[in-house]
Amino acid sequence: MSNFTHFNEEGRAKMVDISDKKETVRNAIAHSSIQVNQEIHQKIVDHDFKKGDVLGVAQVAGIMAAKQTSSIIPMCHPIPISSVNISFTWKEMSEAAYELHITAEVKTKGSTGVEMEALTAATATALCVYDMCKSVDKGMIIGQTYLLHKSGGKNGDFHRDHL
Amino acid sequence: MSNFTHFNEEGRAKMVDISDKKETVRNAIAHSSIQVNQEIHQKIVDHDFKKGDVLGVAQVAGIMAAKQTSSIIPMCHPIPISSVNISFTWKEMSEAAYELHITAEVKTKGSTGVEMEALTAATATALCVYDMCKSVDKGMIIGQTYLLHKSGGKNGDFHRDHL
Amino acid sequence: MSNFTHFNEEGRAKMVDISDKKETVRNAIAHSSIQVNQEIHQKIVDHDFKKGDVLGVAQVAGIMAAKQTSSIIPMCHPIPISSVNISFTWKEMSEAAYELHITAEVKTKGSTGVEMEALTAATATALCVYDMCKSVDKGMIIGQTYLLHKSGGKNGDFHRDHL
Amino acid sequence: MSNFTHFNEEGRAKMVDISDKKETVRNAIAHSSIQVNQEIHQKIVDHDFKKGDVLGVAQVAGIMAAKQTSSIIPMCHPIPISSVNISFTWKEMSEAAYELHITAEVKTKGSTGVEMEALTAATATALCVYDMCKSVDKGMIIGQTYLLHKSGGKNGDFHRDHL
Amino acid sequence: MSNFTHFNEEGRAKMVDISDKKETVRNAIAHSSIQVNQEIHQKIVDHDFKKGDVLGVAQVAGIMAAKQTSSIIPMCHPIPISSVNISFTWKEMSEAAYELHITAEVKTKGSTGVEMEALTAATATALCVYDMCKSVDKGMIIGQTYLLHKSGGKNGDFHRDHL
Amino acid sequence: MSNFTHFNEEGRAKMVDISDKKETVRNAIAHSSIQVNQEIHQKIVDHDFKKGDVLGVAQVAGIMAAKQTSSIIPMCHPIPISSVNISFTWKEMSEAAYELHITAEVKTKGSTGVEMEALTAATATALCVYDMCKSVDKGMIIGQTYLLHKSGGKNGDFHRDHL
Repeated sequence: MSNFTHFNEEGRAKMVDISDKKETVRNAIAHSSIQVNQEIHQKIVDHDFKKGDVLGVAQVAGIMAAKQTSSIIPMCHPIPISSVNISFTWKEMSEAAYELHITAEVKTKGSTGVEMEALTAATATALCVYDMCKSVDKGMIIGQTYLLHKSGGKNGDFHRDHL
Repeated sequence: MSNFTHFNEEGRAKMVDISDKKETVRNAIAHSSIQVNQEIHQKIVDHDFKKGDVLGVAQVAGIMAAKQTSSIIPMCHPIPISSVNISFTWKEMSEAAYELHITAEVKTKGSTGVEMEALTAATATALCVYDMCKSVDKGMIIGQTYLLHKSGGKNGDFHRDHL
Repeated sequence: MSNFTHFNEEGRAKMVDISDKKETVRNAIAHSSIQVNQEIHQKIVDHDFKKGDVLGVAQVAGIMAAKQTSSIIPMCHPIPISSVNISFTWKEMSEAAYELHITAEVKTKGSTGVEMEALTAATATALCVYDMCKSVDKGMIIGQTYLLHKSGGKNGDFHRDHL
Repeated sequence: MSNFTHFNEEGRAKMVDISDKKETVRNAIAHSSIQVNQEIHQKIVDHDFKKGDVLGVAQVAGIMAAKQTSSIIPMCHPIPISSVNISFTWKEMSEAAYELHITAEVKTKGSTGVEMEALTAATATALCVYDMCKSVDKGMIIGQTYLLHKSGGKNGDFHRDHL
Repeated sequence: MSNFTHFNEEGRAKMVDISDKKETVRNAIAHSSIQVNQEIHQKIVDHDFKKGDVLGVAQVAGIMAAKQTSSIIPMCHPIPISSVNISFTWKEMSEAAYELHITAEVKTKGSTGVEMEALTAATATALCVYDMCKSVDKGMIIGQTYLLHKSGGKNGDFHRDHL
Repeated sequence: MSNFTHFNEEGRAKMVDISDKKETVRNAIAHSSIQVNQEIHQKIVDHDFKKGDVLGVAQVAGIMAAKQTSSIIPMCHPIPISSVNISFTWKEMSEAAYELHITAEVKTKGSTGVEMEALTAATATALCVYDMCKSVDKGMIIGQTYLLHKSGGKNGDFHRDHL
């Protein structure tokens, strides 16, 4: 008999133990964006897409994706999410290009942070905007996606400015 | 009795009808990336994260996310996916910053395209890398995410160069 | 050895075989409703709920539920859904009571009908309305839910009038 | 740059914050029903459907649906469900029509109520009965569905009589 | 810039391409078993478990698991399942030990085989029996699980005898 | 009116109430195995399968399956999983046959045990190995699967030796 592999000691996949971590209120805010052309911007603002009200549907997509995070991200712990909030701001880059800025804030009262839930929510929101508008232009670009803020838990807070 | 609202005529959500579209082989390629610091780059290359082999797990995450696309993106049709392929390339930006480039290719033999599946796979792959490395640095930035290529279907092909 | 049980011959659960059935375009329309009080009706119309735009979110819920039908209904076959459309009509019953009528139409190009998908979509839409308005009144009543119309497939069409 | 939309302040979708709510034992009881013809009633009682034992499968469907509630109802919080119990009673309306009454009771020890879980369980149970019997008659009608009872939490209890 | 890794050429995860494979009727039969003590056998036969009718629930579990296969097995293609059938046989090993034999047959009309669906269904059925009986004895053993039969597709049939 | 059935008193399905049980740290360890031929063993060790690195993907499958347990096993409570760890050992049976031994350890801080999560994780890991290697040989046999150890909770610990 040969007993030559203990993969976890060699860096393979495991879900790290959080059973000793304290349940506290934790929140995280993530940011994403999507760059669209003038026609798409106009149609979103005018509610003129045959798939529906783009931002309304995208908000629902982001919220539901936050709840699916632990089934999308393999090593993520399933945690009770106590709140999700997606908000939008438009930025006009030029006459031809507009950026929709997406902020996703997630809260939990649990044993681990919700950074992944916030990032997943922001990303799914952007993907949903792409889906609903792609009949007009497949050249939309989802912008940089990053953590803006994180608090709660013993490792200290995180904060960065908008890129 | 008042009968004042036919929302679909006003632009609310619906899943558009594809029952008349032809089943053909279609593929799509999406691109994403994630920018990490020198320490994370080294640990990924050295397989030195306690959550496991980062790129190996991220590939699985991307493939499984492609299959979940229609449960993440509300107006997306459920379609049979016939192949998913995630590949990586590293780009050294400076001594302190590295970019992991992610390419996701998805194929179907179905009645609608797989752009959303490719974009979702690329994004989930990037999110998984973030998750597995965030104990070192929460400042990683997921880069621009976009469709590179699409073929199949009657609307013609799409191709763009890398940004 | 005793070999005393062949449950399927005794009426236990199985998913019946549809591999010989023809792939054709099939559609189904289901109807549900929810009775709400005057305050809720007003708040829905005015978009004045803190959980959001009730009918917009409910439409998304119905569409996504149609896609989840085979994971909710145990003996339902997973089928490709080619379109889902949820529409609403208000009916004023009295000054104090309003009924929101919900129609869900689902289409497939597949080997079995979409009655369950349409009924599940209509029901989930009604449940979502309940959820978003229950902070005002938990006494809302989801009305009778039934199949209005079904066509496609070799067993003939079905049609009934509104109850 | 224009910064003209803060949708959440205008009533779009969000999952409201429950991180300050207390974890207590909460329960909810919902009621639904389905009206079937004499032949279906007889076949259910005689366990004579080729898809299986109708009420046995429907109970499992209801229980599993309770656990899926937060993935069906967009603004619903994911909560730990500590018990689900589905029970049935038959009511003979006439020689030709029977009503199957469905009661779903759900309990949690959590920060928000389980009304939606109970309503979803009752509804899924009724839908499953429809699915298993629809080969005989597609004219079955799912009856009014409503909350019977709710206790736990600081907003007080709710109780109504059967309609 | 360094471009040193093309993981798929090095054996990392991908979902292999089946878009050129022909859609044909395919079926697979898998076998599993679970060994229980005399008390559990008696209680299953007598329908005397507080969690319910063990074999009835286990059949539903197996059928629903077959439909979840592609979300459990990472490289599995999502395919339309056209039938699932779970059957049971008891074998008395001694006065103290009984084996419940589980056969799961799955059919599809698709581009790839359903071996994994049949194996997953058989396994989930056994796991469900364990779950429902574990309050009596946690020492139950799930027996060898294997493919009995496979037909359809161009790679030829597979058949083995019971172990 | 006839009121002749209270199924739960007759042994039908219910999810038993755990709302009075204490939240404590609980863990469970399950064991499974899969017997493969010499060629498959060699290809696994050499990372020579076109679907990818077999054991790396199988570990991810096992971890993600642990999180899906309550959607696979009908009467299982959804619980927060705080850690999952899958490890492998090879045993050479003869020159022609090798056994891959799979150990899955799951932890929670919750109101009920994680035996089912550990058993589900071990099983899914074995099924994934089968899936990735079945192009070489469909005759692989998944070996006996059982609980090795369980602790936490008021019912006492469980321990058995390897079979």
